[in-house]
Amino acid sequence: MTTTEESSAAPGGREVSEEQRRIEERLTEQVVASFAGAGDARLREVLESLTRHLHAFVRDVRLTEQEWKQAIDFLTATGHITDDKRQEFILLSDVLGASMQTIAVNNEAYRDATEATVFGPFFVDDAPVVGNGGDMAGGAPGEPCWVEGTVRDTDGTPVPGARVEVWEADEDGFYDVQYDDGRVAGRGHLFTEPDGSFRFWCLTPTPYPIPHDGPVGRLLEAAGRSPVRAAHLHFMVTATNLRTLVTHIFVEGDPQLEIGDSVFGVKESLVKRFERQSPGTPTPDGRDLGDRTWTKARFDIVLAPAAGA
Amino acid sequence: MTTTEESSAAPGGREVSEEQRRIEERLTEQVVASFAGAGDARLREVLESLTRHLHAFVRDVRLTEQEWKQAIDFLTATGHITDDKRQEFILLSDVLGASMQTIAVNNEAYRDATEATVFGPFFVDDAPVVGNGGDMAGGAPGEPCWVEGTVRDTDGTPVPGARVEVWEADEDGFYDVQYDDGRVAGRGHLFTEPDGSFRFWCLTPTPYPIPHDGPVGRLLEAAGRSPVRAAHLHFMVTATNLRTLVTHIFVEGDPQLEIGDSVFGVKESLVKRFERQSPGTPTPDGRDLGDRTWTKARFDIVLAPAAGA
Repeated sequence: MTTTEESSAAPGGREVSEEQRRIEERLTEQVVASFAGAGDARLREVLESLTRHLHAFVRDVRLTEQEWKQAIDFLTATGHITDDKRQEFILLSDVLGASMQTIAVNNEAYRDATEATVFGPFFVDDAPVVGNGGDMAGGAPGEPCWVEGTVRDTDGTPVPGARVEVWEADEDGFYDVQYDDGRVAGRGHLFTEPDGSFRFWCLTPTPYPIPHDGPVGRLLEAAGRSPVRAAHLHFMVTATNLRTLVTHIFVEGDPQLEIGDSVFGVKESLVKRFERQSPGTPTPDGRDLGDRTWTKARFDIVLAPAAGA
Repeated sequence: MTTTEESSAAPGGREVSEEQRRIEERLTEQVVASFAGAGDARLREVLESLTRHLHAFVRDVRLTEQEWKQAIDFLTATGHITDDKRQEFILLSDVLGASMQTIAVNNEAYRDATEATVFGPFFVDDAPVVGNGGDMAGGAPGEPCWVEGTVRDTDGTPVPGARVEVWEADEDGFYDVQYDDGRVAGRGHLFTEPDGSFRFWCLTPTPYPIPHDGPVGRLLEAAGRSPVRAAHLHFMVTATNLRTLVTHIFVEGDPQLEIGDSVFGVKESLVKRFERQSPGTPTPDGRDLGDRTWTKARFDIVLAPAAGA
């Protein structure tokens, strides 16, 4: 060993002795080795990597015992605020970008396939069938919005019968499940036509904050970050032999696109024009909106092949 | 760029394209940059490092969306079982070795100072004064054990008036706080004599499992790991201008030392002989133990200087 190996610098210029570094690394190896008996090889791989990264984090920042205690308290509070309607761990994963990183890893760029983004905590399984041309708003308050587009594969072939699931917050920034009255609104699904096309009414998306009265909100505040999500409309598109797409479309000109989406969901390709129409402008399906403005947007969706398909 | 840089291998031989790798890294940098406005520089440093390691973990194992969901569910269950008496997040940190890594980082090796180990979730602040020669057992069931030793600094100078705090499980493997009856037993403190010496009665430590009827227990089971802790006696030693020592002593010959301590707390220097004495063997202080066996152990403690002292 040369003398230059006698110590190693931690970020922030902290130095630890070679002996100390060995003690710390030996502990990591001991914990990694403890998973050798895991029955499931994948579980073993995940736990070994988790251990290495968790230990490296503790070492890199030279985490103090007080900070460790704060982390325990933070996780405890995050667990205690989480219930059937509030999922603070998903919010935590979202604001740390871990959700988007997982999505990136599982939806690798494939030719011109539409990009994926965060799922979020507000999807529900049994949303109503709205049908092509129907209204997803379900009575939720907000400006009417007409969305149309097609679903195709990466060869350009239309995909008939694809299931297009849509959900969104109302103009007050709340999803139906955030109300206590059991309403079902701002969500639904339809199936594409033989030519792959779809169309529906919904609400013009508006920016809203993620729930920020809990530990994650306090974290964002301490970090000087906005809890607000850029305005968006959720999509989940499923079709046989094609990769399921979970994504959003965002609203061109939304100032929150500049400030930053609190969960890092924005991708340039997902920002769409929502053209505002004056009151009285004829609607595509003859719906009478009286003296209200409305918007229209187009979203042409391209699905990658399913893994192994 | 050379062609050899076109792709990078993930562990397990998975390859991702250069374009994909850049997408993933760009996301990490975007999240790191979001903490630039944190008012507290240390908070910023910790969150940036946490983000980098968390994202690297997701990328390294190519975490699936299903596994991400399992992680959310695991953390949720860990939060829900945690209450005033049960701290599942500390158990989680312990079994992943994160607690011991934090202790290693905060208690750097210093000359012959006694090594530190995990604090554990069972310390309480207001344990009774037992005094030198007193009995820490407080009526808890188990084999009596006499412990004696000294507290010195790294120059060998005795430390009078050092506070020696002791706590342990009873022979059934439970700490007093794990019972519902409010008992205070198996814990207490004393102060060292002018010559730095201390002595007390307690119980011979026995191996016991950490609480393993929750998410952490299920994790250990899936990983093929024992939930059992090697038999130990907790110490916390505090003295002016010296580094507070949180440690255990372990029992030479305990088979769990070979199997592995579930929280990685064992260090060779902390394994002590607990000499078993036949019934009727005279006790150091004349205590009459009738026809019972008892043990005796010696623990000479060396405290490092306090940071900045």
